[in-house]
Amino acid sequence: MKYKLFEPDTLRDLGVGIFCAFGAPRAEAAIVADHLVEASLMGVESHGVIRIIQYTAEYKAGRIKPGAPVTVEKETPTTAIVDGHLNFGQVCANRLTDVAIEKARQGGISCVTSRNFGHTGRVGAWTARVAEADMIGIATIAVPRLPGLGHFVVPWGGREGRLNPNPISWAAPTTGKPIVADISTSSTAEGKIRNARSQGIQLPPNRMIDSEGRKITDPNKFYEPSMGAILPFGGELGYKAFGLAMLTTVLGGALSGEDNINVGDHHNSMTMIAVSAAAFAEPDTFRRHVQDLVDYMKSSPPAEGFDEVIMPGELEYRTYEERVKTGIAIPEETTWAEICSIAEEFGVAELTR
Amino acid sequence: MKYKLFEPDTLRDLGVGIFCAFGAPRAEAAIVADHLVEASLMGVESHGVIRIIQYTAEYKAGRIKPGAPVTVEKETPTTAIVDGHLNFGQVCANRLTDVAIEKARQGGISCVTSRNFGHTGRVGAWTARVAEADMIGIATIAVPRLPGLGHFVVPWGGREGRLNPNPISWAAPTTGKPIVADISTSSTAEGKIRNARSQGIQLPPNRMIDSEGRKITDPNKFYEPSMGAILPFGGELGYKAFGLAMLTTVLGGALSGEDNINVGDHHNSMTMIAVSAAAFAEPDTFRRHVQDLVDYMKSSPPAEGFDEVIMPGELEYRTYEERVKTGIAIPEETTWAEICSIAEEFGVAELTR
Repeated sequence: MKYKLFEPDTLRDLGVGIFCAFGAPRAEAAIVADHLVEASLMGVESHGVIRIIQYTAEYKAGRIKPGAPVTVEKETPTTAIVDGHLNFGQVCANRLTDVAIEKARQGGISCVTSRNFGHTGRVGAWTARVAEADMIGIATIAVPRLPGLGHFVVPWGGREGRLNPNPISWAAPTTGKPIVADISTSSTAEGKIRNARSQGIQLPPNRMIDSEGRKITDPNKFYEPSMGAILPFGGELGYKAFGLAMLTTVLGGALSGEDNINVGDHHNSMTMIAVSAAAFAEPDTFRRHVQDLVDYMKSSPPAEGFDEVIMPGELEYRTYEERVKTGIAIPEETTWAEICSIAEEFGVAELTR
Repeated sequence: MKYKLFEPDTLRDLGVGIFCAFGAPRAEAAIVADHLVEASLMGVESHGVIRIIQYTAEYKAGRIKPGAPVTVEKETPTTAIVDGHLNFGQVCANRLTDVAIEKARQGGISCVTSRNFGHTGRVGAWTARVAEADMIGIATIAVPRLPGLGHFVVPWGGREGRLNPNPISWAAPTTGKPIVADISTSSTAEGKIRNARSQGIQLPPNRMIDSEGRKITDPNKFYEPSMGAILPFGGELGYKAFGLAMLTTVLGGALSGEDNINVGDHHNSMTMIAVSAAAFAEPDTFRRHVQDLVDYMKSSPPAEGFDEVIMPGELEYRTYEERVKTGIAIPEETTWAEICSIAEEFGVAELTR
């Protein structure tokens, strides 16, 4: 594949231009574009600028409503439901995170959940924001049955999908970069199975079952004769990840009453719990305590096949530092060509040059 | 092995008798005994009445201080640190849970952490209590380096232990029995490796490494020539479970300032987050929403090797119903003989007859 290298600002300006052309206010377009560029800088390509293509399709289908008001409902001093009215998920999640931080600053701890959010992007971006406010952020995302996609991930013991990669993220501040864990509760994403099929390679065991509920590693058997399903992560201990996936659906759906069982309009159901360290200790002391834990983990010599102990999120921060200097590489003939044709269609082709 | 069957009340009375003989007030002895008998009834033998033996050793070593005051420190309307002063962990956790529920009832959500707790037992017992109060309970346990045991579980990429099975539990009410997930973040417990060695069997792959950091399945190699370590669960995706294990240590240690890096006096560092459904919806509506999710999961036909989809905690409730009728089986020549000799030593031998 041929790649083209871009400076982050070029992609950011292009994203802002496209989203503004959809009718988004500039500040909201910037929230989305910044988020996508940050994900690309961090090496999380799947949640990076490639999503411009998906968001364009969703905008055209009326599933994203740029500029829709994001409102705060059922508010108490420590809790709220943020209704995104199908604005871009990042605009919704950004507001939800602000509300969670502000409430935890006042009340020590907060829990804020969502209704009618678009695709919220890389969930670690939101918990990292909470960590930067000297809090522990814990966020979950439940994913409804999306039109034409459905639920891919099985409940433990089942053979039909009832869940999606439903991630859990948490973050906490240290004396350096925050710890940012961001893990999907499934063993793989459907996109990776599709890639494996197009490359003609097998998947590792314990990732997929066929439509009869038999474990498979051949991606072709996932799609034929009828659709298979994805296992929660953990192999024979996958009931643990299923238990965590259930937490994402209960927090994401049951609290706000948002329906994640039937096909709905929203894309993600997000819940953030923010715990202010200041309610328990001096923030400096708390950061030092977390750093002590990090140092203790890192003092373990490496196992076979590893160079060192890496904290959750550490690799992403390292990639970010690197790519800020080297730029972001985008496949020229596929992703970049599609983005260019979107820019053309929406009258901002000059931003691609 | 020969087993002897007991009625739950017999074991409860015996537990109360022994713990009272240690100097525990009757009400506190009952909290501990009830907890252990419930775990045995639920089929969680490792956290059941067998723990009488461990608690006796800890009491004799001065690590459990029966009757010690359990105090609430640094209290705000939504947060607190409960100091157990080394009372039985169940007495400490019971108080912590009460405080978390009461604060969430008032403030919508609460976060309560611990200092100086004994062994808190089956953590699902505490989150289930929160669920019964129409709340979502999320609890984590961090485990310090215990004297003579140390840390068995490696951080991702490391070969020396820095963690223990550090569980996460969460629970939520349904229209029937609550969902109660209670999962350790490690792939196995050291006790299971010891059992496998004494039975001459191998462990499944992805559970253990030897002292050089190489994956092994032979339990003998875990102990010789020098101590190996346990992997987080998840196989090649074990970084996910490590990420969750880090959450337990940050919530359990960093917030309260309790030291889980060096050998300490306490046995568990517990944190409970309670989210009151009433802050978001009518509790009846919330329970119905959770039940809808359960029904949706259970509507998946079974995969190969399974009979049905089982919710987290469901098996334990089924075993409980069964054993309330059939009784609790205890190995006669080992566990029961040891408990009898403890009862003899503490002058309550009549309770074993």
